[in-house]
Amino acid sequence: MPDKPSLGIGLIGTGFMGKAHVFGYVSAERVFELPFNFILRTVADISTVAAQGAASRFGFARSTPDWRTIVDDPEIDIVSITAPNALHKEMALSAIAAGKHVYCEKPLAPLGRDAREMAEAAERAGVKTQVGFNYLCNPMVALAREMIEAGELGEIRGYRGLHAEDYMSDASAPFTFRHDLAGGGALADLGSHALATAEFLCGPIAAVMGDCVTAIDERPDGHGGMRKVEVDDVGRAFIRFENGASGSIEGNWIATGRKMQHEFEIYGTKGALAFCQERFNELHFYSNDDALGRQGFRRIEAGPDHPPYGLFCVAPGHQLGFNDLKAIEIARFVEAIANTRKEPFNFRAGLRIQTLVETIWESSRQKSWMTV
Amino acid sequence: MPDKPSLGIGLIGTGFMGKAHVFGYVSAERVFELPFNFILRTVADISTVAAQGAASRFGFARSTPDWRTIVDDPEIDIVSITAPNALHKEMALSAIAAGKHVYCEKPLAPLGRDAREMAEAAERAGVKTQVGFNYLCNPMVALAREMIEAGELGEIRGYRGLHAEDYMSDASAPFTFRHDLAGGGALADLGSHALATAEFLCGPIAAVMGDCVTAIDERPDGHGGMRKVEVDDVGRAFIRFENGASGSIEGNWIATGRKMQHEFEIYGTKGALAFCQERFNELHFYSNDDALGRQGFRRIEAGPDHPPYGLFCVAPGHQLGFNDLKAIEIARFVEAIANTRKEPFNFRAGLRIQTLVETIWESSRQKSWMTV
Amino acid sequence: MPDKPSLGIGLIGTGFMGKAHVFGYVSAERVFELPFNFILRTVADISTVAAQGAASRFGFARSTPDWRTIVDDPEIDIVSITAPNALHKEMALSAIAAGKHVYCEKPLAPLGRDAREMAEAAERAGVKTQVGFNYLCNPMVALAREMIEAGELGEIRGYRGLHAEDYMSDASAPFTFRHDLAGGGALADLGSHALATAEFLCGPIAAVMGDCVTAIDERPDGHGGMRKVEVDDVGRAFIRFENGASGSIEGNWIATGRKMQHEFEIYGTKGALAFCQERFNELHFYSNDDALGRQGFRRIEAGPDHPPYGLFCVAPGHQLGFNDLKAIEIARFVEAIANTRKEPFNFRAGLRIQTLVETIWESSRQKSWMTV
Amino acid sequence: MPDKPSLGIGLIGTGFMGKAHVFGYVSAERVFELPFNFILRTVADISTVAAQGAASRFGFARSTPDWRTIVDDPEIDIVSITAPNALHKEMALSAIAAGKHVYCEKPLAPLGRDAREMAEAAERAGVKTQVGFNYLCNPMVALAREMIEAGELGEIRGYRGLHAEDYMSDASAPFTFRHDLAGGGALADLGSHALATAEFLCGPIAAVMGDCVTAIDERPDGHGGMRKVEVDDVGRAFIRFENGASGSIEGNWIATGRKMQHEFEIYGTKGALAFCQERFNELHFYSNDDALGRQGFRRIEAGPDHPPYGLFCVAPGHQLGFNDLKAIEIARFVEAIANTRKEPFNFRAGLRIQTLVETIWESSRQKSWMTV
Repeated sequence: MPDKPSLGIGLIGTGFMGKAHVFGYVSAERVFELPFNFILRTVADISTVAAQGAASRFGFARSTPDWRTIVDDPEIDIVSITAPNALHKEMALSAIAAGKHVYCEKPLAPLGRDAREMAEAAERAGVKTQVGFNYLCNPMVALAREMIEAGELGEIRGYRGLHAEDYMSDASAPFTFRHDLAGGGALADLGSHALATAEFLCGPIAAVMGDCVTAIDERPDGHGGMRKVEVDDVGRAFIRFENGASGSIEGNWIATGRKMQHEFEIYGTKGALAFCQERFNELHFYSNDDALGRQGFRRIEAGPDHPPYGLFCVAPGHQLGFNDLKAIEIARFVEAIANTRKEPFNFRAGLRIQTLVETIWESSRQKSWMTV
Repeated sequence: MPDKPSLGIGLIGTGFMGKAHVFGYVSAERVFELPFNFILRTVADISTVAAQGAASRFGFARSTPDWRTIVDDPEIDIVSITAPNALHKEMALSAIAAGKHVYCEKPLAPLGRDAREMAEAAERAGVKTQVGFNYLCNPMVALAREMIEAGELGEIRGYRGLHAEDYMSDASAPFTFRHDLAGGGALADLGSHALATAEFLCGPIAAVMGDCVTAIDERPDGHGGMRKVEVDDVGRAFIRFENGASGSIEGNWIATGRKMQHEFEIYGTKGALAFCQERFNELHFYSNDDALGRQGFRRIEAGPDHPPYGLFCVAPGHQLGFNDLKAIEIARFVEAIANTRKEPFNFRAGLRIQTLVETIWESSRQKSWMTV
Repeated sequence: MPDKPSLGIGLIGTGFMGKAHVFGYVSAERVFELPFNFILRTVADISTVAAQGAASRFGFARSTPDWRTIVDDPEIDIVSITAPNALHKEMALSAIAAGKHVYCEKPLAPLGRDAREMAEAAERAGVKTQVGFNYLCNPMVALAREMIEAGELGEIRGYRGLHAEDYMSDASAPFTFRHDLAGGGALADLGSHALATAEFLCGPIAAVMGDCVTAIDERPDGHGGMRKVEVDDVGRAFIRFENGASGSIEGNWIATGRKMQHEFEIYGTKGALAFCQERFNELHFYSNDDALGRQGFRRIEAGPDHPPYGLFCVAPGHQLGFNDLKAIEIARFVEAIANTRKEPFNFRAGLRIQTLVETIWESSRQKSWMTV
Repeated sequence: MPDKPSLGIGLIGTGFMGKAHVFGYVSAERVFELPFNFILRTVADISTVAAQGAASRFGFARSTPDWRTIVDDPEIDIVSITAPNALHKEMALSAIAAGKHVYCEKPLAPLGRDAREMAEAAERAGVKTQVGFNYLCNPMVALAREMIEAGELGEIRGYRGLHAEDYMSDASAPFTFRHDLAGGGALADLGSHALATAEFLCGPIAAVMGDCVTAIDERPDGHGGMRKVEVDDVGRAFIRFENGASGSIEGNWIATGRKMQHEFEIYGTKGALAFCQERFNELHFYSNDDALGRQGFRRIEAGPDHPPYGLFCVAPGHQLGFNDLKAIEIARFVEAIANTRKEPFNFRAGLRIQTLVETIWESSRQKSWMTV
C-alpha cells in the first residue's frame, strides 16, 4: 500500500464499541476504495492488561493505560473514543486541541452544553468529527431517504418512530451509571436513535411535546440498599417537523421481549415506508402507483442496487451485519477527512440530538409543547 | 325451533354494517346455544327500494322507509341501529322509550353529552344496550385479557396502541359528513378502537395528553369549491392507566398503505404481547419464563383452545373472519338480554369511549394533560 | 322473498362440516344476489338427538335419523353430504338417482373407481354436483389464477405446493377410520388440497413420481393392543404439468406445530406468487416489472378489488374467515344450478383429484414415474 | 502480537469470494482468541492489475499473476482457493503436495472423482482442509443442531430443505461456465447447501430419488447463436436419512423473486424448527411442551446466548452479516489447524456433498431411487 497516505488511528476504550471500531477500520479499508490507509497505532484502556490484550488481538502497535498518550502522539490522526460517556468531553476536547479528527461514540456528552462546547471546539479547530449513529449508515435507511428526496412518497404527512429494547426491564438489576442524570435514560440512550432517524429522513423537528416516565423507581445499589432512579425508562414525544408533518417517537428500555425494535413508518401522499432494525436488510414500500388490486407493502431486500451493499456482498440476500454498518460509518468519516464528502454525523449533529433530547425532557417536566 | 322464546329483530339501515348485523344474527343463533331464537321482522331504510331489497335478500318479513315503524312494533325486541351517526340518538332514545333493547353501531353519538343521555335513558329504562366494538370480541383479544388477568405478563408497565388506515389519505376525495365536527375525525372513528382495546386490556385510563392534527385542511365540496375540514386526520395521545402503567395510542386515517393496522403491544414485568388486526387470528406472546437462548415472541394461532373459536371451526388454522366477530358480539349481547352475563359493551361503555375521545380533543386544544 | 324460486335443502351429517354447510347456505343467500332462495327442509343424522338438535339450532323444518328420507323428499333439491367418507357413494348415488343436485364433502370417495361411478352417474342424470374444495373459493386464490391467466407472471416454470398440519403427530392417539386404506392418509386428506390448488392455478398435471411414507407404523387400537397403520403420514410427489412446468407437492399430517400450512409458491418468467392459508387474506406478488432497487414480494391484502370479498366486507383489512369461503362455494354451486356458470368443482373434478392421489400412491409403491 | 505463532496466508482469486476470505481472516483474528496470527503474504490473480489492486486494498505483502508462486512459498501455511471451479483440483493438489492447509470454495470440484482425489490427497498428506459451506457457521443453525442433539425436538420424523434464488431466471442471460456439465447446475450450486444443512442437522442421507429439470433449454452463446444448456435449473430430491426420517430438498436458481430462500423445516415428535436464510438471525421453534392455548412458533433472535454471536455483538438484535459467517468459518478452520477441534467441513465433507449431488443426478437420469 505504498501510494496512499496513511492515517494513524488511536483507540480509547476496549469494550464492545472499541472492538466494533476496530472491525470498522479493518473492514472499511478493504471494502472501500478509501483515499487513506489506516495504521492502528495505539489502544488505551485504564486497565493495562485490557489494553495489552486489545493491542495484541486487534493489531495495534502499542497499548497504554493513559489515553493522553494517544492525544499527544503526532503520528495519530484519528482518535476513536469509546470510553464511558462521562469522559467523552475531556478526551474529545484534548484531541481536538491536538488537531486530531475525533470519532466519538454516542451520546456525545451527557449534557447539551458540553456537547455544544465540543462541537464548537471542533469547528474552530477545523478538525473532522463523527458521532456513532451507525444505524443511519444502513443502505436501506439510505434508500428510504433517497426515495423520500426523489418524491417517491409524495409529500410526507406522518411519521412514527420507535426504539424499544428490554435490557433494563429487570427491576432487580442494579443501579448503574445509566440510571443517574448523567447517564441519560431511555430517551437519551435509545430514543436518540429514533430522533436521529426521524430527522435524517424527514428533516428538522420544530417542536416537541414530551412524556418521560420512570417505571422502575429504584434499583439495588449494590450495597444492600436501594437507590432512586433519576432517569426515564420510557421517553415519548409528539413531534412536528419543519415541513409540516406530524409524528411521534418513543425510546423504551423496558420493552419486554424486544431486542432491537428500532422502527419507523412514514406516510406520504403517494406512498409509505416501513422499517424495523430487527430485520434491517429489508425496507417495506407501499406505492399508490401500483395497479388496483395489486397494491401492498413490498419487502425490498438489500442488494447491490443499494450502495454500498455491493461492496460487501456480491448478491442480494447475503445481508449486512451490525459491524458492517460500522465499516460504512468509518468510510464516510474518512471521506469527509479527505474532503470528498460532508461529515455524515458530526459533533454538531450530535449536539442537535442532545438538544432534542433535552427539549423533550424539559417539555415533559413542564408538561407543555416546546420549540426546538 | 319450538321450545325457545323468540326475539324479534328490527334493523335500521341496510348498508355494510346493516348487512354485518344480519350476518351476525343468522350466524349467532346457529353457532351458539343461545337462549332465544331470532325472528327477522322488519328492516328500515329511507330508500324504499333499498329496504325492500334488503328484506328480500336478508330474510326480513317486512320492510319500511320509516324507522319508527320498527320502534312502534310490539313484536320487535331488539333494534339494530346502523343508520348515519347523527341519527343514532333520536332512534336509540325512541327505541329505549318503547322498551326495546338497542344494538347501536359506533360511535354511539357524535357528542359525549348525547351519548350520556342515551346511556342514562337505557339504564333508567332497564333495557340492554350494545355498541358495536366488535374487535373486542376476537378470541385472541379475549386471550390477551385472560393472560393479563391471570398474571402471565406480570405487572403491566407499558402500552402502545394504534389504529391506522388510509381510507382518507386521498386529498382529492370530497368532504363528507365524516369531516365536520359531528363526524368526529380519525380519533373518534379509528382511535376509539385503540382506546377501547387499551381499556379492555389494561383497565381505566386516568389521564391523557392529546395531539390532534388536521393534515388535509380542506376538501372538495362537490360544488366546485373547497370546504374546510373541521376534524383531525391523526389523533394521538399519551395515556396513564389507573394501574400506573403509561402508554400511547394513535388513530390515523391517512396512513397510506395501511388497511387495518389496529395494533397493540403490551409490556409486563414477566412477558409481553403483540397483536395486529391485519392478522387477527394470531397473538404474539413473549415469556421471560422460557429457557435462556430459547426466548422469543411466539405466534399463537387461533384455535379451539380460544373460545368461542371452536364453535365456528373444528381446528386451528381455519380462521375467523370479520363477520364472525359480529356473530360473537351478538351472542354476547343476547346472553346479556337473558341475564346470563353482563352487557359486554353497553351504552355506558360507549359513553366512556366518547368521553375519552373528547378529553383528548380538549387536551389537544389546550395543549395540556387532562384527567378523564 | 316472494319472487324468486326456492331450493329445498337436505343435509346429511351434523358434525363440523354439516355446520359449515349451514353457515354457507344462510350466508350465501344474504351475501350474494342468488337466483334462488334456500329452504332448509330436513337434516339427517344417525343419532336422532343430534338430528333434532341440529334442526332446532340450524333452522331446518324437520330432522330424521334416516338419510333416505331426504333423498325421497320431492321438495328437496340439493342434498348436502357431510357423513363419513365411506358412506358418500351410496348416499350420492341415491340422491342422483332421485334427481337431486349433490354437494358432497371431500374426499368424494375413498377409491377412484367409486368416485368415477359417482361422477358418471351425475353426468348421466344431468344433475349438478360439487365437492367441497373450498380453499379454491378464496378470493386471493382466484386472484392468483386471474394473474396467471392474464400473463402477469409470464410463462410458469416452477411450482411448490404443500399442505401440512400436525393433527396426527401424536403417536399415542388411537387408530381411527382415517388410518385404514379407505381413510386415505395424509396425501388423500391434505395433499389433495395441494393437488387441487396446483391444477386450479397451473392446469393439468401430466405425470407424477410419488413418495408416500408411514412414519407412525402402528397406533393404539382402543382395546389395549396396537393396530398397524395402513396409510401414509406424509405423501410427496414430483409433478409435471401439461404446460411443461415442473414442481412438487406434499401432504403431511405429522408436521409438528403446523395447523394450516397450505402453501404454494409459483415462479414465472415475469413474476412470482407466494401464498399460505395460515394468512389466507394475503397474496404475495413479486413483479420483475418493478423498478430496480424497488423490487420485492408485495403483500396484497384482500379487499373489495378481489371479488366477491366486497360482498362480505366493505373495506380491505376486515378479512374473510373459513366459513365465508364455504358461502362462496355454495353461491358458485347454486349459480351452476341456475346454469349461469360452470360447476366450479364437480364430481368429475373430485374424481380427478382421487385419480391423482391414487396415481401417486401407485407411483410410490412402484418407485417410478407414472403418467396421470 | 509477538507471542503467538503466525500463519502465512496466500489467496488465489480476487473476486467476491476472495474478498470474503480476506474479511474473514482480518475479522477472525480480532473477534476470536485464536492460537495464531495471520500474515497476509501473497494474493494471486491471473490479471496482474487485479492482483496488485487486491494486494493494496486487502493488505497483502505481495501480488502475483501466477498462483504457483503461492504454492511454492515456504512462508505460506494456508492457501485460500477462490478461483473458478474448474481450477480447484490442480491448485488444491499442488498446495497439498507442498504441505499447505487448503481452504477451498465450494464446490470442491465439478466431479466427485476429482473431489475424492483431493480429499484422499489431503488425508495422506495430513494437512487440514476446508470447503466453504459457511451457512453452517451461523449460530442459529448451530443452535438448531444443538437443540436436535439435546432431544428438544424429540425424534426427527420429517425434513424439508430448500435453496432457491432467481439469479438464472432471465432466459436472455448468456451461457456461462455454470451451464455446462462441469459447472454443475442449480442442484450442485444451491441444492448443495440444502444437502449440507440437511446432513448437518439430521445426519447421513441413506437414499435419494432425484428430479433434475432444465427449464431454459438454451441460452445465447455470445456469438449470435444459442447454446444448449447441459445442467439442471431445478434439482429436487426425496431423501431418506439413516435415522429413518424422510424428507425432501430442492435447489432452484430460476425461482423468480427469491434471493436467498435457503430454508429448512424440521418436524420432531416433541417440537419443530423453521429457518430461512433471508432472515438468518432468527430461528423459529415450536414446542409441544408449551401450555395449551399458548403454543406457537417462537421467533428466537440471535444473541449472546448463541455462541459465538457474543464475540461479534454485545447484545441480541444487532445481527451478524454474511461476512461474519465467513469469519466464524475461518476461526473454526484455524482451530482445526491447531488441533483444538475437528475440521468443521473438510474435503471429505465436500466430497460427501458432491457424492450426494451426483447420486441425485444419476437417480434423476435413471428415474429410480438410489442409495448413497
